[in-house]
This record gives sequence, structure tokens and C-alpha cells, in this order.
Amino acid sequence: MTESLLPQTPAARPAGRPRSQEADTAILTAALDLLIEHGAAQTSIEQVARRAGVTRATVYRRFADKTALLVRALEWANHDDDPRLTGWPSIEHMFGDWAAHLAVPRNRRLLRRVNGSMDDYPELITTYRDVNGGRREAVVREMLCRARDLGQLPAGIDVDVVQEMLSAAVLGHLNGHPDDEDAERIQEYFLAILRQVGYRAGS
Amino acid sequence: MTESLLPQTPAARPAGRPRSQEADTAILTAALDLLIEHGAAQTSIEQVARRAGVTRATVYRRFADKTALLVRALEWANHDDDPRLTGWPSIEHMFGDWAAHLAVPRNRRLLRRVNGSMDDYPELITTYRDVNGGRREAVVREMLCRARDLGQLPAGIDVDVVQEMLSAAVLGHLNGHPDDEDAERIQEYFLAILRQVGYRAGS
Repeated sequence: MTESLLPQTPAARPAGRPRSQEADTAILTAALDLLIEHGAAQTSIEQVARRAGVTRATVYRRFADKTALLVRALEWANHDDDPRLTGWPSIEHMFGDWAAHLAVPRNRRLLRRVNGSMDDYPELITTYRDVNGGRREAVVREMLCRARDLGQLPAGIDVDVVQEMLSAAVLGHLNGHPDDEDAERIQEYFLAILRQVGYRAGS
Repeated sequence: MTESLLPQTPAARPAGRPRSQEADTAILTAALDLLIEHGAAQTSIEQVARRAGVTRATVYRRFADKTALLVRALEWANHDDDPRLTGWPSIEHMFGDWAAHLAVPRNRRLLRRVNGSMDDYPELITTYRDVNGGRREAVVREMLCRARDLGQLPAGIDVDVVQEMLSAAVLGHLNGHPDDEDAERIQEYFLAILRQVGYRAGS
């Protein structure tokens, strides 16, 4: 995806398709940036077109309306962000991944924008959940079950409740902690919470 | 506060002050309603004045700008909402109170609006925390300490972490549960979380 962002000499670029792909990338990038900067309500097709350097007609040829455009931008951003999802070797690794993501202010802001627009643009949070739910939720659940089976979590825990608690903890961090907290400290935030549930790291 | 919302016959109303108080109430009510309906970014002094049935000049005489008005509306709404804060007889009662608040869609939406505008209007969440923090946070903490001392929570828990976890759980509920969930079920949501920490109700 990033390739089409690289400058290309006109001679090297075949006619038609790549130019269209360039416009796609420019539009999605502009839409995502505006969503992060100003939120869904304060973003318009007009602004996206201007920032992407295309006409409004070019945007409307691809997307029926602002919501459809933002939904696509969100899918696009999250697709790139999701390498394998084969699971983690340990709870520490899992939280390390979460912390690395949450240590990037842009990621935090995007998550807040998506959550913050749930009353006006519910399609955004639905899209986010569609893209990030499913497999991602399943591997978190597997990780918690494995930790429990290894005796790192009490046998009697309700894995579903603990998982919901951890998702809520992400929101709590986005809302209540500064955007410049480093990854190590964020990882410790999640570990401290899981310790209350009885988590003890394996030796 | 609600008294001034009642219709008054012009004859019964003394000149000056009460009329001004009526305008205050109408303006704050309109501001709060618009914040809940459309969010801070999509609310304007113009709209507030129109809905309150006053001129823009009347609003601007009282409030320097939209943010100052929304901050005041939030303080006003939350002041009314806060009866005694002398604490609860049990964890169940505490969660019962939280659940009763979160079972009202309007309350949920207001909380989401305040949280959702933290990047653009950080003054709102700061105000909310100022009004609701302090004494309110202290009584929650006292409640958790008391439950621990009564043996309803494990002696080794970190009360601060558990409190932060519960605050996050509120956000999780606001974001991930439907607005028509009843109070009993919401109370059970919090109890289920606290049970993972080892909470056992007293006999």
C-alpha cells in the first residue's frame, strides 16, 4: 500500500490504473487524517478532496457519502495494521503488543475518534469491531485460557468477563492516561489489572 | 432548580431577577440538551439561543463562549444529580447506584459526549472530573477498603488499581452495551467483574 505513496516518475508510471490507485490512496489517507484530527462530524468530503488534491467528483465517484468513505478508510488503516494474529507466546507479549499500539498518539486518537462518534456515526465502531473483532478477539481469549491452564490465572476465573474487563481497560487508558505514556508503563498498567484477577507470571 | 422551569403567571413573578433566572435555566437546559443530542462540536451558541427562546446577545452576556456555556451546563446538571455522597452500606448498593444512573439513556449519552469530545473540548471532561472526582472517588475508595477489611475482597488487592478498573468498566459498558439494558443487569455486570478480583458478598 505504501508503495503507491512513493514519488513515481511520469515515464515509469503506466497509464490509467496506477493513477487511479494513487487517487485512492490520497483520498483514504486524507480521510483518515481528517478523522483523526477533527473527528467524523467535523470532516467533510470537500475537505478530503482538497487535502487529497482531487476534485469532489473524484471522491464521489468512489464513495457514496462521507460515512462510506470513513468506513473504507478505517478498514484500509486497520488492514495494514494487522500482521499475522497467530497469537502470543505469553500474556506479557500480548500486553506488550497492546502497549506498543497504545503508545502511538495517532493510534490513541483514532480509537477515541471511533469511540467518540458512536452516537452519530455508529458505522465506524461497527467497522472497527468487524475488522478487529473475530480473529483478534479469539486469540485474546485463547491466550487467557492458556494462561489459566498453565496456572498463571486462577482456575475459577470467567474468561469472558476478564476479556471484557481488559477491553474496558483499553478505553480507560485512552481516556484517563496521557498520550505520551511509554509502552513499558502501559504494559505495566495492564499487568497490574490482571494481577488483581490473580495473574502470576510463569517462572 | 426545576421550580424555575414551572410556568409562572406574569403577575406572580417579581420584576428583574426571576426573569433573569428563567433565562439562565432555559439557556443551560438548551445547552445540555444540544450537547447530549449533537455533541459539543455540533452545538452552537446560535442553536442554544434559538432553543432557549432568547437572543444570542442574552447568551453572550452570561457566557464568554460555547465552551464556557457547556462547562457551566455540565456543572449545573451534575450538581443536581449529586444528593449526599455519604457512601453506601455495601458494594451491591454502590453498584446499584451506578447501574441506576447508567440505565438512563440520557445519562449514558451525556457521558459518551463528554468522553467523546475530550480531544476538542478537554474542558468538558475536566469539569466532569472536577465535579465528580474528589468526594465521589473518595467514597468509592472507602467502600472498596471497607469490603476488603470485611473480608469480601482479598486482603492483597491493590485498591487503586481495582478502582481504576471499575472506572474503565463504566466506559466499557457505555461503549459496548445497548442503551436499553436494565439496571439489574448492569449491576450484575459490575458484580461479575468484581468477582474476578475475588469479591464475595458478605452473608
